[in-house]
Amino acid sequence: MLEIREVGPRDGLQNEEPLNPERRAEIISALCRTGLREIEAVSFVSPRAVPAMARPADVLELVDRRSEVRLWALVPNVRGAEMAVDANIDALTVTVSACPVYNEKNVRQTVAESVAAIGSIVEIAAGRPVDVVISCVFGSPYTGDAPTAAVPDLIGQLSDLGATRFTLADTTGMATPHLVDRVLHKTGVDVGLHLHDTRGTALVNAKTAIDLGVTRFDTAVGGLGGSPFARGAGGNLPTEDLVHLVLDDPAVETGVDLTALLAVADDLAAAVDHPLPGRIATHGPAR
Amino acid sequence: MLEIREVGPRDGLQNEEPLNPERRAEIISALCRTGLREIEAVSFVSPRAVPAMARPADVLELVDRRSEVRLWALVPNVRGAEMAVDANIDALTVTVSACPVYNEKNVRQTVAESVAAIGSIVEIAAGRPVDVVISCVFGSPYTGDAPTAAVPDLIGQLSDLGATRFTLADTTGMATPHLVDRVLHKTGVDVGLHLHDTRGTALVNAKTAIDLGVTRFDTAVGGLGGSPFARGAGGNLPTEDLVHLVLDDPAVETGVDLTALLAVADDLAAAVDHPLPGRIATHGPAR
Repeated sequence: MLEIREVGPRDGLQNEEPLNPERRAEIISALCRTGLREIEAVSFVSPRAVPAMARPADVLELVDRRSEVRLWALVPNVRGAEMAVDANIDALTVTVSACPVYNEKNVRQTVAESVAAIGSIVEIAAGRPVDVVISCVFGSPYTGDAPTAAVPDLIGQLSDLGATRFTLADTTGMATPHLVDRVLHKTGVDVGLHLHDTRGTALVNAKTAIDLGVTRFDTAVGGLGGSPFARGAGGNLPTEDLVHLVLDDPAVETGVDLTALLAVADDLAAAVDHPLPGRIATHGPAR
Repeated sequence: MLEIREVGPRDGLQNEEPLNPERRAEIISALCRTGLREIEAVSFVSPRAVPAMARPADVLELVDRRSEVRLWALVPNVRGAEMAVDANIDALTVTVSACPVYNEKNVRQTVAESVAAIGSIVEIAAGRPVDVVISCVFGSPYTGDAPTAAVPDLIGQLSDLGATRFTLADTTGMATPHLVDRVLHKTGVDVGLHLHDTRGTALVNAKTAIDLGVTRFDTAVGGLGGSPFARGAGGNLPTEDLVHLVLDDPAVETGVDLTALLAVADDLAAAVDHPLPGRIATHGPAR
């Protein structure tokens, strides 16, 4: 059984024109009815920095929550974690980069400072799952190379601080099947993957990981996120493209209703008022 | 070693505004210098039906041919085969559909009539390789289902008539990894694959086939072909995307110079005067 974490309401919508909390809650509630069990619904970031993610507590309040669906919030720091817990979130996502240059440019912290902050967030989470999304695992836009050697060490440090899940992110779409294989042999397959489709490789990298035993994937309905405005650019791995890929494979279950998911993608395209990059949302299922 | 047959000059250009034979020969000559060993350069079809493929003999005359590069022509019938042989072609491609409805709509012949014509073409080829591209193997736009059961029988009949190579085409982008696996278990892996990227699955299906032992692929520089004008549509599997996918994998060689190939893609985009769908041509290699 694949465990698909839908990140569209957060990673997909964060770079769009802001939707009001009611509309965002409507989309999340619809996703809760597709069979998805994990949804990254909001982030507790500065509304000045990311206006599209404003009022996360209001969004959570409005969502038609279901006991079988775990809602995640991305939190950038201790204050965000406190607000997320106050808002009755189920689980927390935090980030750190495998590339020190990227970490310093992105959050103006050293990797060590980010690791320490995650330790504090784990305490605030008070037993809720904390998933560390490690960015640039398959390549950094600053240094080129994949900082794969740093990843197992980072996972070790964070595990010691109580983080319980790790997700390897291909932030800039630089992963290849061979590199996925190399990295997973270092980390083991009890990790999630967060793949970007910049170079059209998200599906093939996901399939490679599935074949190696990975069961957790971050995806975004319609493929929203990343750089949807660049010509031909894919953003996140589209949820419905991954579901469709394995639909006829009796060895791989997702539990997701593709028809219901495609209806959400249609609604999302209307909400953001532009076409989505997802190929199944665009062309329809093969059968 | 993968054997990549570049079909861009034929399958890619056939639906474009016609280029003159000099320009087409220039593109083919440049492709001959990238390390590709197999190029489908022309087709001997009616210039009224397909104006962009007019004057194939003139194109072949103008190409800077190299002994290590085999040039292929698509021929629709006996007359086309005779002209191709007269024009000093190295090898012939012919087509038949695994879906009887598609075959009748596409070439107004029954499958049996197409098979008989291929038998005659094999005789005309006089020892030159004849590759039968079998369309709709992974799904038909008319019947929905993949007519997989018909494929081994068709291959058997055509082998008896002297056809020496077979290529399975995913004409409408309906293949999935599981279906590729199922089909290849019926046909064996001594076949080529001609994959379309309508649903963004060409790369993952190619990788699945490579892992199963397939070594022959039809691809088109820049991903030209198919329906390049539909939003988000991929046409053929882009040559450079396949080369890039396995570039870091020591177990898979292509012999193709990616930089040289990307230069041809740039030139091709200028020639057809619109952007190409290929993702590596658009975003550049990961490293």
